[in-house]
Order: sequence, then C-alpha cells, then structure tokens
Amino acid sequence: MHRRLLELIENGNYNEARQMLLDLNVVDIAQLLEEIKGEKLVVVFRLLPKELVADIFSYMPQEQKQYLIETITDQEVTRIMEDLFLDDTVDMLEELPANMVKKILKNTDDDRRRLINRFLQYPENSAGSIMTIEYVDLKEEMSVAQALAYIRRTGVDKETINNCYVMDKNRKLVGIVSLRRLILAGEATPIRNVMEKKIVHIDTSMDQEEIAHLFRKYDLTTMPVVDKEKRLVGIITIDDIVDIIEQENTEDFQKMAAMEPSDEAYLKTSSFVLARHRIVWLLVLMVSATLTGSIIRSFEEVLQSVVILAAFIPRLMDTGGNAGSQSATLVIRGLALEEIRLKDAFKVMGKELRVSLLVGAALSSINFLLIHFLEGTDIRIAFTVAVSLFLTVVLAKVLGGALPIIAKKLRLDPAIMAGPLITTVVDAVALLAFFSLSKAILGL
Amino acid sequence: MHRRLLELIENGNYNEARQMLLDLNVVDIAQLLEEIKGEKLVVVFRLLPKELVADIFSYMPQEQKQYLIETITDQEVTRIMEDLFLDDTVDMLEELPANMVKKILKNTDDDRRRLINRFLQYPENSAGSIMTIEYVDLKEEMSVAQALAYIRRTGVDKETINNCYVMDKNRKLVGIVSLRRLILAGEATPIRNVMEKKIVHIDTSMDQEEIAHLFRKYDLTTMPVVDKEKRLVGIITIDDIVDIIEQENTEDFQKMAAMEPSDEAYLKTSSFVLARHRIVWLLVLMVSATLTGSIIRSFEEVLQSVVILAAFIPRLMDTGGNAGSQSATLVIRGLALEEIRLKDAFKVMGKELRVSLLVGAALSSINFLLIHFLEGTDIRIAFTVAVSLFLTVVLAKVLGGALPIIAKKLRLDPAIMAGPLITTVVDAVALLAFFSLSKAILGL
Repeated sequence: MHRRLLELIENGNYNEARQMLLDLNVVDIAQLLEEIKGEKLVVVFRLLPKELVADIFSYMPQEQKQYLIETITDQEVTRIMEDLFLDDTVDMLEELPANMVKKILKNTDDDRRRLINRFLQYPENSAGSIMTIEYVDLKEEMSVAQALAYIRRTGVDKETINNCYVMDKNRKLVGIVSLRRLILAGEATPIRNVMEKKIVHIDTSMDQEEIAHLFRKYDLTTMPVVDKEKRLVGIITIDDIVDIIEQENTEDFQKMAAMEPSDEAYLKTSSFVLARHRIVWLLVLMVSATLTGSIIRSFEEVLQSVVILAAFIPRLMDTGGNAGSQSATLVIRGLALEEIRLKDAFKVMGKELRVSLLVGAALSSINFLLIHFLEGTDIRIAFTVAVSLFLTVVLAKVLGGALPIIAKKLRLDPAIMAGPLITTVVDAVALLAFFSLSKAILGL
Repeated sequence: MHRRLLELIENGNYNEARQMLLDLNVVDIAQLLEEIKGEKLVVVFRLLPKELVADIFSYMPQEQKQYLIETITDQEVTRIMEDLFLDDTVDMLEELPANMVKKILKNTDDDRRRLINRFLQYPENSAGSIMTIEYVDLKEEMSVAQALAYIRRTGVDKETINNCYVMDKNRKLVGIVSLRRLILAGEATPIRNVMEKKIVHIDTSMDQEEIAHLFRKYDLTTMPVVDKEKRLVGIITIDDIVDIIEQENTEDFQKMAAMEPSDEAYLKTSSFVLARHRIVWLLVLMVSATLTGSIIRSFEEVLQSVVILAAFIPRLMDTGGNAGSQSATLVIRGLALEEIRLKDAFKVMGKELRVSLLVGAALSSINFLLIHFLEGTDIRIAFTVAVSLFLTVVLAKVLGGALPIIAKKLRLDPAIMAGPLITTVVDAVALLAFFSLSKAILGL
C-alpha cells in the first residue's frame, strides 16, 4: 500500500492518493512524506485535511519542516503555528536557522510569540524546555459540574485533559484531579473534595533524566512544573518522557563505548562529525596504552629470554578488559536506574570481590589446564599465567565495581568509567603482575 | 521525615506513624516499608487504610510480598487479590513459589481464577503476559450520554478509562474513543461517530520490545490487544511500557558487555548467580584469545630478534577494540531504535569506512610522531606500527558496523556483536598484520 501510494503521487493521481492518505495514522503519513522530495512534497502537503496538518507536521523530520517553512506561504505557516502545541513549536525552533525562526515568529501572534521566547530561554533538557502550557486549570472552589462545563468549553486545545490542575486564588497549585475522578464523582461535589493533594511536582530547572526517573517511580502520565512560589507554569506528558528515556540510554551507550554523546540519528550524522565524536577518547586511550607498552619495554630482558611469554598478553588483556566491563556495566546501569545508591559502595565492592574470586578461580584453573596439558607449555609458565589471570580478574572486577561509584561521588557521569577506561587501567597492572611473576618464578 | 517515621514504628507509636503514612504517596509508602522487617511489617501493613492496601502491595518488592502472603490471613489475601489489577496479580504469581500460588488461588473467586490461569499461559514478555483486562468496553450503537452513564457505573475498577474500546455485536474491536472526546462531544451523538477507527492494535503473541517500539512511534498511552478474530482481549498501558523500555535497555547493556541478561536488580542477585551469568562469555572469549596468542607464537623468531615489538601489542589491541566498540555500539543502538534498518547495511558500511579512514589516518600519524620522535624508536618500527594501527582501525570499524547488521539478518540479537566479540576478532587480525608487516619491513 505504501508503494502504491508513492506511485499515485509520482503519477500525479492526487485525488486517489488523498483518499488513501486519509486512512492512515498521522505518524504513518509523516513517515510516508519522508520519501517525497521537493515540490511534490508541497503539493501533497497541501492536499492534507486542514485539521491534521499541524499534527502531521510535528512528526516530520527537521529537514522537511525546514523545507516546507521556506516554501509555503506566510498564511500557511501561521495556520500550522496556531495548531501546533507549544512544546513542539519550541523543539522545532531550537533547531531551525535564525532566518526561519524569524519567518515563524513574524507569523505568530504577540501573546504566543512572548511565550515562545520565554520557553526558548530555559536551559536545554530542563523541565522548562520540555513542558507544555496547554493544560486544564481548575479553581478549588468549583463544583464538579462547573469543572466539566469549563473543560468542555476550553479542553479542545489542551494537550491532555486526563489530568486537570487545581489552583488557589494566588495561582498556587493545590491539587490534581483526573478526568476519570470528575466523571465518577457527583456533580455537586466541590473540586476541593475530589482532588488529590499529594502531588509529585518539579521545578523548571530539574534535569530531564531525573524527571524521567520520577515518572517511572510513581507511574505517572503527566507531571506539573511549578515556579519558586509553587505556581503552576506547565506540565510534562509521558509521550515526551518515553523519548527522553531512550535518548538518555543512547547517551549512556555512547559514553560507555568511549564516544562523545550526540542525540542525532546515526544515518543523519556526517562522517566528519562521527569521526570527531570518536577520536578524542580513542586518542586519550591510545596514549594511555603507551604506559602498558613501557611496562613491557621495562621487562625486555625477561621477554628476550622467554619470548613465548608474549603469546599470553592477548589472553590476559582481553579477559581483564571483559571482566572489568561486565562489572562496570552492571554498576553503571544500577546507578542509572537508582537500584544502586552511593551508600551501597561497600556492598557493591564486597559483591564484586566474591564474584571475582569465583570467576577468577574458574577461569585460571581452566587456563592452567589448557596451557599445560593441551598446548604443552612449561608448567611454570602455565602457573604464572594462571596466577596473573586470577589477579587480573579480581582487580578488573573490583575496579569495575568501584570506579563508577567514585565517579558518581565526584559528580561525574558514571558512564565514562566503562569498559574502555577500565581496560586500559587493568592492562597495565595485569602485565606488570605477569612479568614480575614470570621473572620471579622462572628465576630470570 | 523518613527517619522519624521509622523511629515511630520502631518504638511502637503506631497511631502517629499511621497519620504520617497517610500523607505519603503509595509508592513512597511501599519504599518505606522495605526497611521494616518481620512481624513489624505485618503490624504496619495492617494499619494501612483498606483502600490503599492493594495499591501499596503492588509496589512492594517480591520478597516482602511473599512474606506477607505467608503471614497474613486468608481473608486478608482475598481482599488484596480482589483489589489488585489482573496484570499485577499475574506478574506477582509468575515469581512466587508454587505453594504460595496455591494459597492465593484458593482465596480467589472462580471467575478470576480462571482468568489468572489463562494469563499465566501466555509466553513471558508477550503482549498476553503484560496486558490487563480492566478496560472499558462500549458498544458502537450507544450514544455519548449512554456511554458516560455506563462508564460512571463500571469505571471505578478499570485500570484506565481515558481510552474506551468500542465493540460491534461480535465483540470485534471497531474503534477507540477517548474520555476526552466523549466529554467534548454532544450527548446525543452516537459513539460510532466520535470513535477513532484507525486503530493501532497488536495480537497476544507480539514481543514486548516491539510493543514498546509501537508505543514510541505512535505516542500512545494505551494499546488494545486482539485475538485472531480481532476480538478485544486486553489492553496494555504506558506505565508498564516505561518499565519494559528500561528492562530491554538493561538487557542490551548486559549482552553488549558479554553477560547473560537478567532482569533481577544487581544488589538482590547472589554472587553465585552473578558469577554464572558472567563466566560463559568470559570463557568463550578467553579461549578465542588463544588464537591471537598462537599468532604471536608463530612469529616467535621475529619477536626474538626485535623483542621491542611486544611493547606495541597493547596499543594495537586497545585501539582496535575501542574503535570497533564505538562503531558496533552506534549500529546496535540504531538497530534497536529502528533508526537503522537492514536495507541500510551498505550505507552503514560506507559511513564506517569513511569514518575509519579519517580516524585511522589521524591516530596513526600521531602515533608515528610519538613513537619515532618522542620515544626515539627506529623509524621503520614506527612506520610499521602506524600502518598496522591504520589497518586495525579500518578493520575494527567496518566489522563493528557490519557484524550487528549481519546478526540481525540472521535473526540473532545484534547486541551480542558488541565490543568484546569484535575486540577478540580484531585482535587476531591486527597482530597478524603487525607481525607480517614487521617481518617484511624489518627484513627478518
């Protein structure tokens, strides 16, 4: 059907295409429009029913939004801007070039322009920057019937009416009442008596990661944002939170793989930008690896007499790195989900120590058997490798458990203490132990 | 306040404690109860207002649920089971020991028991296992007024009434109408005219990861689950989806760090279980690293004559591993978020090739300068290292980009093609290149 629709558009069968488009969900329409380029896009865009245009527009990729705003008339821009929710407008403006922001603001009425400007000033990723002001505000002295009448009158333009916010005379937030509760309550009941007074609220500066955590903790679908006087200034809705959770996870994945985080989609980022995000950490880690190199250099004469020792370097380095990554990943993840707190530091290290003793003992025994019996290497060398491997695993896991917590304590992001960094540290110690032991045990 | 409350409970000041508890959100009450052990827990639990008990219970950790069910009377169990939503009940039962499941089912009425048993049969992580049946069902011939009256009569026990589901005579799902739409519509309007007919629905066997993706794509807060005849069998709500998204991310983090995934919280998992989840992959990767070792072994005579070459092994291995991890992580993440599709395979590899040429060129030049001028090593060795490093980075990134896509194509989880596995593969090739080049360039 997708292909058929594109064909109809390609051949200029717009009427038939329009009929098919109308059967689609707005998200699917936006996705389909992605494949239409240039003037055809404007033609198809103008075919869409007026009441869906803003909604479809909000799901389009930034480049297409930009192209459309450049191309369509001022009246059309005004119409879209009037129908877009404020948070979607602000999101879009943040990424548009200045001349286009001007074109949009020129076509926006004064009140809304003032609001947009205020929103653009909130720091990125703060509650202020992701909230919307299209909420339903009730007064505590209203009755349920009055509230419902008020909602019927004003609710059409609100992003959600499932939760309504109750204010006192000074516009201070005093309660929340769900539409569900209003429907189920008697018409004469005062709002004051049906509203929920235990409110989870946040202020405009709270970071989105923390907000997402509160949504998850309290199973919320909306959350009010208040100013310092506890006056309601906006609400945040769960659909934005779901995207934020994925965005925060993507950032953690990137940091843990030693990259600078970026929220642009991979295929839409240029090779040059991708290279820039990756090279800094690679360079830092490469230079750190010269330390490990110089440890090997300092044992040159040991290696000279038993050159076969070099064959065990990869095994020690890889196993150390992997063992450390495992621990660091679990702890970083636990910290991110707040399943592990700072006060658990000793518990975590104790656990990692026990796990590392189990894992280290198993790996090093298997390794000993492999090296001595299967590969037929000298028993003293097999023993040295096994002991070094054991020490490496223990060190890697304890460091892997401790470093993310220390980072958090120092108010750094625990995610940077992941595999790559721990691997580099563990490598140096592992090889130092291995060559010192070899020297002693082989009597060199 | 938290501490004060615990003190009150410790000292048996239950009345005062109860007053303070009532001011808390149910989630916070459940969190506080976590710190109360043994009989005191039962005492405090019995203090809670009847209408909140089931809700608080649903937020308690599994061990405490288990302890309470063992300890409280059958009547109390019945009461909680009546008030719990079906999806929460099923979640809990799935993790309880058999004798306790028996105690619960014994105290559940026949209808509900039959339902629970049906739910327990859906495969884990399928739509069937996470859906709930507490939804509002309307008939298409109702008027808005009739629908609202029906909701008022039956809505109290529903998990959500924000979206209501419209059925035809054969109980086939024909539309969804939001409470918002009902409130804003005229009372005499037939439901048929206000309902949304473009429905995103899923069947009972769909995997939760895919469901979460649909929720994100269409900005949904609830989604209907239907059987093969398109009859409505349940709904899924966004609060469960948020948890599923984090759970799926945790699994990816674990797989990418070469562990068997587990959804138990770190601190609640025993060291023995943690060790078991980690050792298999460590072992596999350690044994693979012997391949790299045997490559070094086969160049024993090269190493024997220029033992200093060993000092560059860590640099090559670490940089190759890190470069590969970066690419693999971005591609795995892109696949998980469906920003990258299978058909993009060549685009991804082209991009990785370009990025790796940039990054490789930069790193190997810097490395050449460092080794030759700063460390004062023979220019031929510096050259060999630089060229090997360049080849390593290019190989690592192209493999890092390709392997996750190949895994996906083979219907394996792309997340297993992450850093650890790629590092092991790249190590072998990197060292092979390094020693072959050294042999040729140094004329050994």
